[in-house]
Amino acid sequence: MKIEEKTLNYVKSITAQTISNAGSGHTGTALGASSILLALFKDHYNFDVSDTDFINRDRFVLSAGHASALYYTLLAMFGFDVTLQDLKEFRTLGSRTPGHPEYGVTDGVEASTGPLGQGVANAVGMAIASAIMSERFNSVGFPIINNYTYCLAGDGDLMEGVALEACSLAGSLNLKRLVLLYDSNDVTIDGNLNLSNRENIIKKFKAMGWEVIKVKKGNDIKACSRAIAKAKRAQKPVLVIFKTTIGIGTEKEGTSATHAMALSQEEIKIFNKKMGVLESFYIPNDVRDFCMASARRGKLNHETWNQELAVYSNSNPELYKQFLQFFDRKLEFDKLLKNISKIESRSTREINHEILNEIADKMNQMVGGTADLASSTKVFIEKGGKFLAGNRRGRNLHFGVREHAMGAICNGIALYDDFVPFCSTFLTFSNYLLPAIRMSAMMKLGVIYFFTHDSILVGEDGPTHQPIEQLAQLRLIPNLNVFRPCDANELVAAYHIALTHNQPSAFILSRQNLPAVSNTSYKDALNGGYILQSSSKEAEIVIYASGSEVALAQAVAAELNNPAVSVVSMPSIEIFEKQSPAYKAKILQKNAKLRVAIEASNDNVWYKYIGEDGILINVNEYGASGKGELVYQKAGFSAKDIVKKINKALGK
Amino acid sequence: MKIEEKTLNYVKSITAQTISNAGSGHTGTALGASSILLALFKDHYNFDVSDTDFINRDRFVLSAGHASALYYTLLAMFGFDVTLQDLKEFRTLGSRTPGHPEYGVTDGVEASTGPLGQGVANAVGMAIASAIMSERFNSVGFPIINNYTYCLAGDGDLMEGVALEACSLAGSLNLKRLVLLYDSNDVTIDGNLNLSNRENIIKKFKAMGWEVIKVKKGNDIKACSRAIAKAKRAQKPVLVIFKTTIGIGTEKEGTSATHAMALSQEEIKIFNKKMGVLESFYIPNDVRDFCMASARRGKLNHETWNQELAVYSNSNPELYKQFLQFFDRKLEFDKLLKNISKIESRSTREINHEILNEIADKMNQMVGGTADLASSTKVFIEKGGKFLAGNRRGRNLHFGVREHAMGAICNGIALYDDFVPFCSTFLTFSNYLLPAIRMSAMMKLGVIYFFTHDSILVGEDGPTHQPIEQLAQLRLIPNLNVFRPCDANELVAAYHIALTHNQPSAFILSRQNLPAVSNTSYKDALNGGYILQSSSKEAEIVIYASGSEVALAQAVAAELNNPAVSVVSMPSIEIFEKQSPAYKAKILQKNAKLRVAIEASNDNVWYKYIGEDGILINVNEYGASGKGELVYQKAGFSAKDIVKKINKALGK
Repeated sequence: MKIEEKTLNYVKSITAQTISNAGSGHTGTALGASSILLALFKDHYNFDVSDTDFINRDRFVLSAGHASALYYTLLAMFGFDVTLQDLKEFRTLGSRTPGHPEYGVTDGVEASTGPLGQGVANAVGMAIASAIMSERFNSVGFPIINNYTYCLAGDGDLMEGVALEACSLAGSLNLKRLVLLYDSNDVTIDGNLNLSNRENIIKKFKAMGWEVIKVKKGNDIKACSRAIAKAKRAQKPVLVIFKTTIGIGTEKEGTSATHAMALSQEEIKIFNKKMGVLESFYIPNDVRDFCMASARRGKLNHETWNQELAVYSNSNPELYKQFLQFFDRKLEFDKLLKNISKIESRSTREINHEILNEIADKMNQMVGGTADLASSTKVFIEKGGKFLAGNRRGRNLHFGVREHAMGAICNGIALYDDFVPFCSTFLTFSNYLLPAIRMSAMMKLGVIYFFTHDSILVGEDGPTHQPIEQLAQLRLIPNLNVFRPCDANELVAAYHIALTHNQPSAFILSRQNLPAVSNTSYKDALNGGYILQSSSKEAEIVIYASGSEVALAQAVAAELNNPAVSVVSMPSIEIFEKQSPAYKAKILQKNAKLRVAIEASNDNVWYKYIGEDGILINVNEYGASGKGELVYQKAGFSAKDIVKKINKALGK
Repeated sequence: MKIEEKTLNYVKSITAQTISNAGSGHTGTALGASSILLALFKDHYNFDVSDTDFINRDRFVLSAGHASALYYTLLAMFGFDVTLQDLKEFRTLGSRTPGHPEYGVTDGVEASTGPLGQGVANAVGMAIASAIMSERFNSVGFPIINNYTYCLAGDGDLMEGVALEACSLAGSLNLKRLVLLYDSNDVTIDGNLNLSNRENIIKKFKAMGWEVIKVKKGNDIKACSRAIAKAKRAQKPVLVIFKTTIGIGTEKEGTSATHAMALSQEEIKIFNKKMGVLESFYIPNDVRDFCMASARRGKLNHETWNQELAVYSNSNPELYKQFLQFFDRKLEFDKLLKNISKIESRSTREINHEILNEIADKMNQMVGGTADLASSTKVFIEKGGKFLAGNRRGRNLHFGVREHAMGAICNGIALYDDFVPFCSTFLTFSNYLLPAIRMSAMMKLGVIYFFTHDSILVGEDGPTHQPIEQLAQLRLIPNLNVFRPCDANELVAAYHIALTHNQPSAFILSRQNLPAVSNTSYKDALNGGYILQSSSKEAEIVIYASGSEVALAQAVAAELNNPAVSVVSMPSIEIFEKQSPAYKAKILQKNAKLRVAIEASNDNVWYKYIGEDGILINVNEYGASGKGELVYQKAGFSAKDIVKKINKALGK
């Protein structure tokens, strides 16, 4: 048997053993796609196991995350820091080999995947990032950045809207060096693919501007390798369709029964025999050597690149300086404030436009855009130019009306390296990209999401456009910092936190102009919540509010005309919750007779602060189409109405 | 001028006036698509303004909901209960002409639209419903159900993942009598479409199994009408591409500046002059007559249909009986319980499978399916058959891995009439279809969403598959009833409420087997929350829990071994909140020394019940890949750990 085939047999055997040993884990795709990924790792994938963060490495995303056992097996065989012991611990608590690939947990894994479709859009984001880097830093004779982005997707991935949106954009942008490896086995969990999908995928992708290569023998490693070689020469994004057999080599190969199957000990014996493998969890020397040749190739490529970079630094000193600066973030946030013109009564979306541009001028790591709402969200870099097929220098990404892909593409850009991607739409449409935001949060990527038109004050566009539950839904996402600033001071604080933490952020911004709020503080806002207006003695009434309701809280306080009223601004509940118990107690003033929270959302988190006798002024039903101010007042957001409620509660 | 052109000019003029008068409202598409919709209303759309619920009427969905002013203008001109006064009140609070079309608010409006893409998937759902009805009730010579479904979509709609998923499915299912009218003006808010989309839409739709018709002169009403006539003869779903000019007739026609434009009074004068219209908000008699001919045609069609139905009822008595039964829902829920076998220690997804099948046997209005997870969610009708291109009798819909379209298609099926559509996926993936669930809730459609694998107990598949925030995110959606039952009794109560209310429901079900819970009650569960275990005297400790944590709450109570412990089961917080204050007080027992809530979610709503000194046992961070029980215990869900916390809080 040739060494290639022997290696493939070991890949299959160890993969199947890994799953069998764990008792669960998707044997079907893991075996079916083994030939594709072995061909990729062996002949094409450029990586350096001694420096897996090497900037010009190829990127690979396993969008079909359920094939994790195959992926871990290859990482182990090709010299990444994944051991046979790790494989034995597959899917056990605390292991380095979790059920689906997790970014930051396993050496070599470039993205957390599992929820289908996301990985495809991540790969598109990585290809965009690579295209930007190439354009900015390459010079004649010095292709400092020329990596490929590979992604393995299955039938399920390519039915998901997020992938379809991303592929449509990738074709429209004519992204190069993006190779989508499609494990086409015509079988899904519920049975044959044709139960739910009969489309002509070749013609569909061609219509979207992709090159398409079909490999009839997708389980033949040589055929796989040849196709990938061809794909690398394309001048467009490429879909390589590998016709494979799910669960190949097992009794039930070719059927949906293999999808989530784990082979029994008895079945493993039969399978191993068929593969010519006698040992369990073992890599023979010739197989190891065969794989390590690829690892050595990658290391050599990296060394050559280092030498080229040294020459480049001499011949292109200015570019080289910019290249180094790209990985360096420096911002003096309090100085920034001075540049923000103090126009009262503006919307936070407009203030944000100004601050975003101030920062983007200093940080060319920032790239981003909107889902076709730039004129409304005001999220664009004025001097940034458009990122297009013909202009890779552009920093404004035109995602089209593709919110979900927008989020997942930003994840891909963030994963690429050191970029600060941002994107925007209306808050009510944050629902469209929630799955991508969850992945940002799980991977702790510094993506900034700008959501404008943040309450029922949107007005005339009516209930479909008026967010009610979205603010609370975002706050519930672990690791996501949500900011709802009431003015420029608080907004700069939000940027400060967003740009200095490895976490995604959501900035919730108003469409309408906001009245000026007195006593806000950039420094205090860094704590998430702070006292805007102290009571003269111990507070009798405390009013908590965020964003557009902070001015209203101040109006209520003024109307109450009681020196024992305190007003608290809460631009970020997540950040506030991280403060010390003493700080929190000082701000919350829980001994007050009455605690009131005002926010145009239906977030239950306020129950935590107001106590059982507190008053919550919020919105619990859908809005209505009409003038924003009228809708707002109808929902009870007027100083007069709130004062009435407060006086009633106090028995006045 | 011919009457057709005169009518079109009046449509344009009144539309532009409506928007101008309101001061906002998207003149661009409203004018650009006027020829398409006038052709549809005039020559093809089959409706009866005297009975707009007529079952065999054509369905029309304005997916490009921002063109509402055009829609309302046509409804007014064609005899629906929309007056010129209504048009004058466009976008004002309480009017019948809100900013975007709202189902139930305006006569003739078949679906609430605005969030792009949803309407396309709604239309696919309506076409599925129509196909099912045709197959079930038509007999030779009696096409009782043969309506068309029309949908107007713009460039934005067709970039949205939800629309792309739905169109892929529609083609795969070879849905007939589905006509997608594409207002193709090549302009989006951010500028020219080719900034973000350069795909060949003709080839793309053909590849998806659609027929495609292109109309070069999309602003020519005769060309539009001819194309729609052709589309009606197709034996596949049809995309009709109308090349139009956005904002046609205005100064800035053909540019993105017209998108959200409202003409000034001065501009309206110029525009009206161009249209040959001298009056404001006025329909001349000849134009009115011209339009009313179509209304009369529709009324006549309905009368003929009534006569045919009378003959059909004689020649097909059995079918006719079934037809009438379709609109009739009767279920005796307490009898149902007796049929549910009482197997202890099952998962609620398995119990649900049994109950769903019991009910579906009696209610053939129920149709639905999963996003390729039938074997995992157990949501399928055993005797239901598969709904396929070749089997319209099937009741199990194979949505493919298209969660978002699945939700929006179910909305379309519910909108069609009297169906009870259902769908399912894992709870963590409920995020993928949240925008569709919001539309179910806003329209108060009785869709049932089954979400299984409901907590970190999912285990090995890891954090991407373990819901944390999803339960709370769903509960935040106004009008959606969320149920997390702990056993069959509570599940039947959930069905009782779901099937007798005009509201959508989400059933949150466990993957793992649940221990038996004592003292659950179907009748008590109808109140959303109830006492499972009373304390002998006034409660000292009250424990609230839902779903899989109810058994744990009972275990904690047993371990505490204190007669003053009460256990409360909360299968639905929404339903509980609707009970009387007295009932709620009785159940919550707020005088207890210590209140504890246990739920494997991060829902803040529990703060409302436990008070400031209460204990909340919940999950605030992402899970991990490992055995479910271990992940659960690690997160603090063990009777021992909870008892410790309780004793500590009580100073014991």
